[in-house]
Amino acid sequence: MKDIRGFLIDLDGVLYVGGKAIKGAQESIDLLKDRKYAFRFVSNTTRTCRNTIAGQLSSLGFDIPVEYIFTPPLAAVAWLKNAGKHRCYLLTTGDVYRDFEHEGFCNPGTIIDFVIIGDAGDRLTYDNLNTAFRHVMNGAEMIALEKDRYWMAPGGLSLSAGPFVQALEFATGKTATIVGKPSKTFFDLALQDMGLRADQAAMIGDDILTDIGGALSIGMQGILVRTGKYRKDAVVNTGVKPSRVIDSIAQLRDIL
Amino acid sequence: MKDIRGFLIDLDGVLYVGGKAIKGAQESIDLLKDRKYAFRFVSNTTRTCRNTIAGQLSSLGFDIPVEYIFTPPLAAVAWLKNAGKHRCYLLTTGDVYRDFEHEGFCNPGTIIDFVIIGDAGDRLTYDNLNTAFRHVMNGAEMIALEKDRYWMAPGGLSLSAGPFVQALEFATGKTATIVGKPSKTFFDLALQDMGLRADQAAMIGDDILTDIGGALSIGMQGILVRTGKYRKDAVVNTGVKPSRVIDSIAQLRDIL
Repeated sequence: MKDIRGFLIDLDGVLYVGGKAIKGAQESIDLLKDRKYAFRFVSNTTRTCRNTIAGQLSSLGFDIPVEYIFTPPLAAVAWLKNAGKHRCYLLTTGDVYRDFEHEGFCNPGTIIDFVIIGDAGDRLTYDNLNTAFRHVMNGAEMIALEKDRYWMAPGGLSLSAGPFVQALEFATGKTATIVGKPSKTFFDLALQDMGLRADQAAMIGDDILTDIGGALSIGMQGILVRTGKYRKDAVVNTGVKPSRVIDSIAQLRDIL
Repeated sequence: MKDIRGFLIDLDGVLYVGGKAIKGAQESIDLLKDRKYAFRFVSNTTRTCRNTIAGQLSSLGFDIPVEYIFTPPLAAVAWLKNAGKHRCYLLTTGDVYRDFEHEGFCNPGTIIDFVIIGDAGDRLTYDNLNTAFRHVMNGAEMIALEKDRYWMAPGGLSLSAGPFVQALEFATGKTATIVGKPSKTFFDLALQDMGLRADQAAMIGDDILTDIGGALSIGMQGILVRTGKYRKDAVVNTGVKPSRVIDSIAQLRDIL
């Protein structure tokens, strides 16, 4: 780890699990601060805006600056800025729109540059999908905040953003740009914010594919934690080999 | 046409256009009757049940027995009978459920053998799609009444069943069986009802791909009419060569 100068850290499953902070997580963050490592937090959640996530982390006892948190909506905003366009139609839920509104990127009228598709649950109505479809047929590009198939909701397996992204791709014949993990775009955004190259940073995560596989594929190191969604069998089956495996983020001290 | 003993006839665009009967259409049907040809009607509509279609045809002045009308919901019912299963979850709209109810195939409870997906508009809610998704993950098979991308509704281009079929295929990793035109299943159903082989029948339609292409691919003849959605350029671009092209079904007399 001697060339590593910064860390990207996943949230759910790494800092907390099931609404409870992982023991020793804040101490590991403090240690990074003390030793002058750069660090940022990268989560694939697309149901909550950055400010709300910061508030939730605070209520779990974490001391994390809001501007250190990166989510797919933030990556989408960066993508829009880079494209020099700002008129977007949001297929998102909850308060995610705030991340866009904050930058002046909201639904401004009939001409739309980008359709943004997240894990939007009940907001994925026929009418909203049809509106998105028509915008794309009129020239708008599609940004997928993620393209997961489904997730385990309290009520059972539930469709994520992926099927609806796929539906709009099928209808329009166009392909969406995916901006969440494991896209290079997403990792680059947080790396640039730290002023580091990929080979100077390590990703700490519990998802062998999106966290570790994604990090390794762009030249970062990947540190897998045995908390959250970690399952030994599932890891072996992927064929992805983490740079390190530690019991939890609390063990970061032992490998620095 | 000398070996032809029966005809399959499309409805919208062939018998009527924009709510008006094509001039001479009923006379052509009468002629088929007089000359002892077999005939059935095959439409890809998935928004109306067979009885309602028969009523609409009657109000346009047509004299067509209800049991001569074949639509994708009817093809799905035949598929279910053939499979010896009857528990289905319907993602359909309007009164299409009547075609299933009529055979005792309705939503009976929690165990489902088949999920049936049609062009269901507002009924394609997140919750309904999620219910369909869970049934498929629990072992139900998917039947797509059609897999079109979109259609021109009065309010503008609108998503058809295809994108939602694609969404559920992506989420579940399974493939839906398509039972509407141009599937062999569908043509076979109407052919069997006439007691004819494919090479003894001709399809009369206005859609070069689903009507003519579908018919030719299973060994039927394909007679294209220049009414309905017929556009010369579009026909040439497909590369499909109809057996005959006539101005409208009224000209059937000239080629019998």
